[in-house]
Amino acid sequence: MSKNLKIGLFGFGVVGQGLYEVLHKTKGINAEVAKICVKHKDKPRPIDAHYFTYDKHEILNDNSLDVVVELIDNANEAFEIVSEALKKGKAVVSANKKMIAEHLQELYELQQKHNVPFLYEASVCGSIPIIRNLEEYYDNDLLASVEGICNGTTNYILTKTSEDGLSYEQALKQAQELGFAESNPTLDVKAFDPKFKLLILLNHTFGLFVKPDDIFNFGIQNLSLADSTYAKEKGYKIKLIAHTYKAGNKVVAYVVPKFIKPHDLFYDVRNEFNAVQLGAAFSDKQFFLGKGAGSFPTGSAVLSDIAALSYNYRYEYKKIKQNGELPFSNDHALNLYIRYSNEAILDELQVHDITQRYWSPDTKYVIGKVKLSSLIKARLNDRVDVFIAKAE
Amino acid sequence: MSKNLKIGLFGFGVVGQGLYEVLHKTKGINAEVAKICVKHKDKPRPIDAHYFTYDKHEILNDNSLDVVVELIDNANEAFEIVSEALKKGKAVVSANKKMIAEHLQELYELQQKHNVPFLYEASVCGSIPIIRNLEEYYDNDLLASVEGICNGTTNYILTKTSEDGLSYEQALKQAQELGFAESNPTLDVKAFDPKFKLLILLNHTFGLFVKPDDIFNFGIQNLSLADSTYAKEKGYKIKLIAHTYKAGNKVVAYVVPKFIKPHDLFYDVRNEFNAVQLGAAFSDKQFFLGKGAGSFPTGSAVLSDIAALSYNYRYEYKKIKQNGELPFSNDHALNLYIRYSNEAILDELQVHDITQRYWSPDTKYVIGKVKLSSLIKARLNDRVDVFIAKAE
Repeated sequence: MSKNLKIGLFGFGVVGQGLYEVLHKTKGINAEVAKICVKHKDKPRPIDAHYFTYDKHEILNDNSLDVVVELIDNANEAFEIVSEALKKGKAVVSANKKMIAEHLQELYELQQKHNVPFLYEASVCGSIPIIRNLEEYYDNDLLASVEGICNGTTNYILTKTSEDGLSYEQALKQAQELGFAESNPTLDVKAFDPKFKLLILLNHTFGLFVKPDDIFNFGIQNLSLADSTYAKEKGYKIKLIAHTYKAGNKVVAYVVPKFIKPHDLFYDVRNEFNAVQLGAAFSDKQFFLGKGAGSFPTGSAVLSDIAALSYNYRYEYKKIKQNGELPFSNDHALNLYIRYSNEAILDELQVHDITQRYWSPDTKYVIGKVKLSSLIKARLNDRVDVFIAKAE
Repeated sequence: MSKNLKIGLFGFGVVGQGLYEVLHKTKGINAEVAKICVKHKDKPRPIDAHYFTYDKHEILNDNSLDVVVELIDNANEAFEIVSEALKKGKAVVSANKKMIAEHLQELYELQQKHNVPFLYEASVCGSIPIIRNLEEYYDNDLLASVEGICNGTTNYILTKTSEDGLSYEQALKQAQELGFAESNPTLDVKAFDPKFKLLILLNHTFGLFVKPDDIFNFGIQNLSLADSTYAKEKGYKIKLIAHTYKAGNKVVAYVVPKFIKPHDLFYDVRNEFNAVQLGAAFSDKQFFLGKGAGSFPTGSAVLSDIAALSYNYRYEYKKIKQNGELPFSNDHALNLYIRYSNEAILDELQVHDITQRYWSPDTKYVIGKVKLSSLIKARLNDRVDVFIAKAE
């Protein structure tokens, strides 16, 4: 039933090495890594030299290779590799959320034009099989919303600030020491990484292509002890939530910290775990939890994509045809806790329907509504004196 | 890409009616209900009379029908319908866990022999796509365990005894009034229903065929205030857990109440919700939550199976070939809280490694180890004076 796949692999970091090992261990998949393209000629390699090449065309032009697995960091180089492979009729597996989010429409069109599959389960929430479930299981369901904790780094930091009383800076340092955060954590802590994932989920949920710049994201980099204390006093936990849903006849999406109450399923999603909750008309609430990053969870998702290719699986992108007329819009207001130092921000954001206002010599906040379009315009991620979180 | 399916439907209760409606509403599936076999001629029907027949052969012998959807209660009649349909080369969808659990090996062999698909996602945990995920996503993963809250009725009752302080009898009555429990709740409260589901999961996890009688199940029907108080004092919740896992070189499985600690993902699975947790070598812990029963969640799962058939999907049962040499065994001990009235039960169960022993005029319990084979032999479900729960 399944074909024997010959794989050309780009990148041989922890995920690539894990993949190589696992493919030699499992009996279930008929696939082998035949060639590996890496950058550094001088690095010692754990397997025989004949596997390696330093020229991408040695893989891309090799007609005996059926599948390209792309596991490199650089999003631009990755896009060149992936698009060239698709043009050559090779199936492709990638985990590169940034690259996919920035080029999703082109990548979709390349798949249609060249009639080849491109799978990327590992790009969103690691081991959680969310894209495949959205594609396969809910194609006939009336999906209303997808909400998730899609970034393990920030969830680890938020767990430590909440449970151990650490400051944001202390928790970030700990996460970096444990390898949960990179030395330059910007993409994670400013919520770009979960935004890339949200954009991919949005496409597989509502069939829309949206540009990263059009989705509001705000991270946890300005989280202060005042914010943590506010949450604790109310019995909330703060989680960084990516959310897309139908609001009337439009689709909205954003990534923003949110106050989570006890009994909410996200409340106990701790440390580096990810979770996604779907709201659907027929199946009601569905919740998935698993590890979002790391070599094994990522490798496991890549492996599943490879296994799926051996059974000719491909994304059908049914929602693009089904729901194509639902427009994406930022003309939608969120109810937010806004902690600030300079009052001018409230005018700039055009905060309205204010229900609470607090002032002390140290801390000022309001709770009120702000449109997503105003949030994007204010470039909040570039400020250091503002923290916002979604309130009820 | 997808074919147009003509469906012969057995049973027209809430799920069947919901299915009929939904198939007329969704654009995603190319399928129609062409004929419906029901029992009672005199019942008023919400749709035109020409749809109905009272003779099963009018569907089974009709070559223009591609798919049989079986949604009747009676497990014996259901097996006759399903096996005859498979023999006639029709694809079949069913939600009948009892029927499937009792005949899984025959049903597997019929699929192989007649080369037809038989899908039953709705039979296990309703809207949670667990079979499809076990089949499709984890075929290459080294699965170690599957653990779940697979029965909504008992989970509703346990939520009420724990959160509202109701007695078991009060909570059962409430569940019956709300339609979460049947007037004869035996299959649910004595844990036969979750055992049927566990048996199906066990097959898709470890590839083994096990008979229902060979799996230990003990329910919540003897839960007393003393047991609830014990749990509350320790900070635990009691949940009815179905569990299968590799213990050394064998596979074990059972359904038994278990003390659940805070931060365990099952702790906050409340009311009629179901949840399943997978333990896998590469993807680590995976957790799925959703509604386990009800017309919409069940209908949604049935619908997904129909959609999958239109893309020629079928279960591959890869684990049967992969892990076939792992034997199922009841030669494995659980650490249990055993509350009893007559001391003789401790000898009968051959309780060993006792770590706690409590005696008061009203309540006696021990904590110690008991083999699954001894638990089965003691027919605990038939006694009224014993409650057991899995302890750490």
